[in-house]
Amino acid sequence: MTEKNLAEKLLDVAVIHGDFLLSSGRRSSFYVDKYRFLCRPDLLKEIAVELCGRLPEGIDRIAAVEGGASILVTAMSLESGIEALIVRKGRKGYGTDNWCEGSWEQGMKVVLVEDVVTTGAQMAVADDALRSGGLDVVGLFAVVNRGGGEGFTARVDAVAMLTKEDMESLAAAGESGQS
Amino acid sequence: MTEKNLAEKLLDVAVIHGDFLLSSGRRSSFYVDKYRFLCRPDLLKEIAVELCGRLPEGIDRIAAVEGGASILVTAMSLESGIEALIVRKGRKGYGTDNWCEGSWEQGMKVVLVEDVVTTGAQMAVADDALRSGGLDVVGLFAVVNRGGGEGFTARVDAVAMLTKEDMESLAAAGESGQS
Repeated sequence: MTEKNLAEKLLDVAVIHGDFLLSSGRRSSFYVDKYRFLCRPDLLKEIAVELCGRLPEGIDRIAAVEGGASILVTAMSLESGIEALIVRKGRKGYGTDNWCEGSWEQGMKVVLVEDVVTTGAQMAVADDALRSGGLDVVGLFAVVNRGGGEGFTARVDAVAMLTKEDMESLAAAGESGQS
Repeated sequence: MTEKNLAEKLLDVAVIHGDFLLSSGRRSSFYVDKYRFLCRPDLLKEIAVELCGRLPEGIDRIAAVEGGASILVTAMSLESGIEALIVRKGRKGYGTDNWCEGSWEQGMKVVLVEDVVTTGAQMAVADDALRSGGLDVVGLFAVVNRGGGEGFTARVDAVAMLTKEDMESLAAAGESGQS
């Protein structure tokens, strides 16, 4: 499976058409339902192989924000044998009350992974948190980057990278009733 | 690796001593830090192999509540090739706004998995939600069941099953300063 074929397959499976409110507050006529690939072990395995193949040498940890991305980081951790870190969106207020789960040491090299990136806001917060915690974030990976290459999203390498043209085309497909 | 050895290894790695507030509101002198095994691919793989070996025949989906347990369900999904379901704690209010992520049909046979069970309250809610959704929940699995075999927890099969005596012994170890 070449990279392009996997990207196409993921978009075929995950893009749904309708009227959606995004977490950013914006509305969209299409939505990338990440669980359509995260919950399927065949596709998840292919994604993990693809992204692990892009890991720089000497990575100590693979990190993700808690939530759906913990599925992705788990698949990559099992594929590579590299330990996972889960960055909390907020503290739980009980148990260990950690800001980041897993074990690490100052100076460790980390790649931060995300499933679907739209504005990259959540990923940027996690990137800051890891750096503030003394970790060296050497890569930002996503499965689908629908950020159009703007702002923070320009730094995120992805299996499927949606340009502005791709998104206009997806929006037009939604409006003409395709699903 | 026999079951008993894996259970002992998990408790060695994950049990920490101190004064902890649990999610149930109770205090405990020990805490099972599930991320100490969930973030380690070697241990996670062993757990997945062990729990997949206990899956009844003909299981269509493996489900978990969103959060740390999505790491466990991912490892089991990759190990078995069975699709995963993620049961939401609450709706997000954006995107697809599903109560359960992944794909399923009425009547499918599901095993619900959890990392650490204390009272089983969260697992019981998910069990109800799946049944209300028309799924047939045929098994309840956990990595560590610290429920002492009471109430709902009596129904949960686990790699490491802590009895009241085990917990008294762990609490006593904490009070005598062992960690």
